[in-house]
Amino acid sequence: MDPFKFALLHEDAATRARRGRLLTRRGTVETPVFMPVGTQGTVKGMLPEALAEVGAQIILANTYHLFLRPGHERVARLGGLHRFMHWDRPILTDSGGFQVFSLGELRKIDEQGVRFQSHLDGSAQVLTPESSIAVQQALDADVIMAFDECIPYPASREYVLESTRRSGRWAKRCREARRPGDGAALFGIVQGGMYADLRAQSAAELIEIGFEGYALGGLSVGEEAEVMYGVMDQALPLLPRDQPRYVMGVGTPENLVEGIARGVDMFDCVMPTRNARNGVLFTSFGRISIKQARYADDPEPIDSECGCYVCRNYSRAYLRHLYQSNEILSSVLNTQHNLHYYLQLLAEARTAIETDRFSEFRRAFYARRSE
Amino acid sequence: MDPFKFALLHEDAATRARRGRLLTRRGTVETPVFMPVGTQGTVKGMLPEALAEVGAQIILANTYHLFLRPGHERVARLGGLHRFMHWDRPILTDSGGFQVFSLGELRKIDEQGVRFQSHLDGSAQVLTPESSIAVQQALDADVIMAFDECIPYPASREYVLESTRRSGRWAKRCREARRPGDGAALFGIVQGGMYADLRAQSAAELIEIGFEGYALGGLSVGEEAEVMYGVMDQALPLLPRDQPRYVMGVGTPENLVEGIARGVDMFDCVMPTRNARNGVLFTSFGRISIKQARYADDPEPIDSECGCYVCRNYSRAYLRHLYQSNEILSSVLNTQHNLHYYLQLLAEARTAIETDRFSEFRRAFYARRSE
Repeated sequence: MDPFKFALLHEDAATRARRGRLLTRRGTVETPVFMPVGTQGTVKGMLPEALAEVGAQIILANTYHLFLRPGHERVARLGGLHRFMHWDRPILTDSGGFQVFSLGELRKIDEQGVRFQSHLDGSAQVLTPESSIAVQQALDADVIMAFDECIPYPASREYVLESTRRSGRWAKRCREARRPGDGAALFGIVQGGMYADLRAQSAAELIEIGFEGYALGGLSVGEEAEVMYGVMDQALPLLPRDQPRYVMGVGTPENLVEGIARGVDMFDCVMPTRNARNGVLFTSFGRISIKQARYADDPEPIDSECGCYVCRNYSRAYLRHLYQSNEILSSVLNTQHNLHYYLQLLAEARTAIETDRFSEFRRAFYARRSE
Repeated sequence: MDPFKFALLHEDAATRARRGRLLTRRGTVETPVFMPVGTQGTVKGMLPEALAEVGAQIILANTYHLFLRPGHERVARLGGLHRFMHWDRPILTDSGGFQVFSLGELRKIDEQGVRFQSHLDGSAQVLTPESSIAVQQALDADVIMAFDECIPYPASREYVLESTRRSGRWAKRCREARRPGDGAALFGIVQGGMYADLRAQSAAELIEIGFEGYALGGLSVGEEAEVMYGVMDQALPLLPRDQPRYVMGVGTPENLVEGIARGVDMFDCVMPTRNARNGVLFTSFGRISIKQARYADDPEPIDSECGCYVCRNYSRAYLRHLYQSNEILSSVLNTQHNLHYYLQLLAEARTAIETDRFSEFRRAFYARRSE
């Protein structure tokens, strides 16, 4: 039994944008897709029904956080992550590598894996390729990610080379720990930093091992957007055309449009949700900061072109009041709007690709932001 | 035009419990009723649609908070509080007196009104009977409350006498500032502390002035429950039988059941919402604290007899995880359950009164809590 499949439905005539479909054991996902981030088993401030309402098809959960609290074995005993958090659509879990490596002095790496101290209580913990896969399986994710190092930026060629080679060996161990055919997909993660030859080498190694999908890791780590786009331009064409391509941790609406134009199928990022809690809202004409005094008397919705629940029912003045008053509903409403914006943007991109009009879509996207 | 009316539908055969109906310009309210508290123009963590789902018929908003931020004139310019917060059912506003008098050293009282410093920015502010009414009218509340002093407990007879007399004079000024017939109801507030003769005198004065409803103020301020019930026993029969009776700031589920038995029609309290944010949940068998380790692996809902959205879809283990993780959804889900509990309790009480079975309802209520 291996119901995970990717169907490449259409390729845009003028760009490398792709229209596809993931077929998972928990339903289909139309691509390109943006995956809201539910770090601790909840997309902050969003009921699952609200997530469905804004069009979320698949969400991301963080292995590192759930491993530490409440614990993957506990989640497994309670019926898996879907049942735990009342979400029946697909879930992708990251491998925990990104968070573990972000711990800096609190972690120590060797060939076996990573020893680290929990950010919650300082307790000693270990993650290895094998245990990361075991955790993700216990959570019962539909797409699981190989355990790798997310290389910081900038980094020396020597560091990137050594790290990428180790991530390659770890990817092989992940594949061995999780053979295809038992229900969920395993994706490999292309590293190599900003070095084209190392990216190519990493991609070749992973393809040789063989995964159900491929990600670009180590992007959106502080590099210029043009550098990121350069890596996409160079590395994405090296990946199998008939398999899904995921760029991890990206990004702004502009990053998404550019990524789609270069052939990315899947994205995730905390930007719409985290920004929402800080009062930064996405609109068709760019970002606004709802805390500004100019909105105190503004009866208009966030974006008069937006059809979301928030824009249909609430004024900027009310949203500013909620933000100023530190009310829970501020985060709830702002998050709902921002996720609707991101998911609607992707829905419109999908339609544009289907009709070979992605270049026009991209031009219109930028034109409205510079009016 | 004065559509505000109260219809006394039925009186319980064995207790003083009353089944009634408020007819307001924004729809009817079945009594006895519990009013969730929306201090700053939002019931913390509750979308208006969720409030309707748990059965909220009318909510309370705080004049003091909205006066200071965002300001009643701003709310009026934006179309009134209902439109501002996207709530189209009735709203009752308190007078601001309770909060102003709670400021202690930051306020100064004289016959004219109260001068105080804003808790937000220390700015000098004034509220008088006339301005309190003006603020409540600007908010466009459906039921507005007379401006009075909420007397602390304990208090000397001299203090209570003087304060109650002044509140009586202020009540008259409120009535003059707001004549009947312009749409909303004005309620007078019986003071008198825990002194029966002063309560009686206050009630007589207010009835002489004439209001659309009467409240008991100065309860739930630290006195024993038996003292509170004693005041209800003594003062409620002094009020006009054909007008609504509201006990302000009360209380626990037990307080509500006892209040209903004594003839109270309306209640408000922050208890279900504030406790929810602290992880304290109400059930048919009493309160539980969801943070306790005993719930970490508990797959059961909060209350297996509860039919609310939260109990239908989430385990205690998940709710404990959300609380431990300081997640927004913790407050959202806990609040939704607690308000459902309170509002369902009142709905069941109404049915019991209609069929002259309130005594049985009350016995069963206590029996389930002591099992």
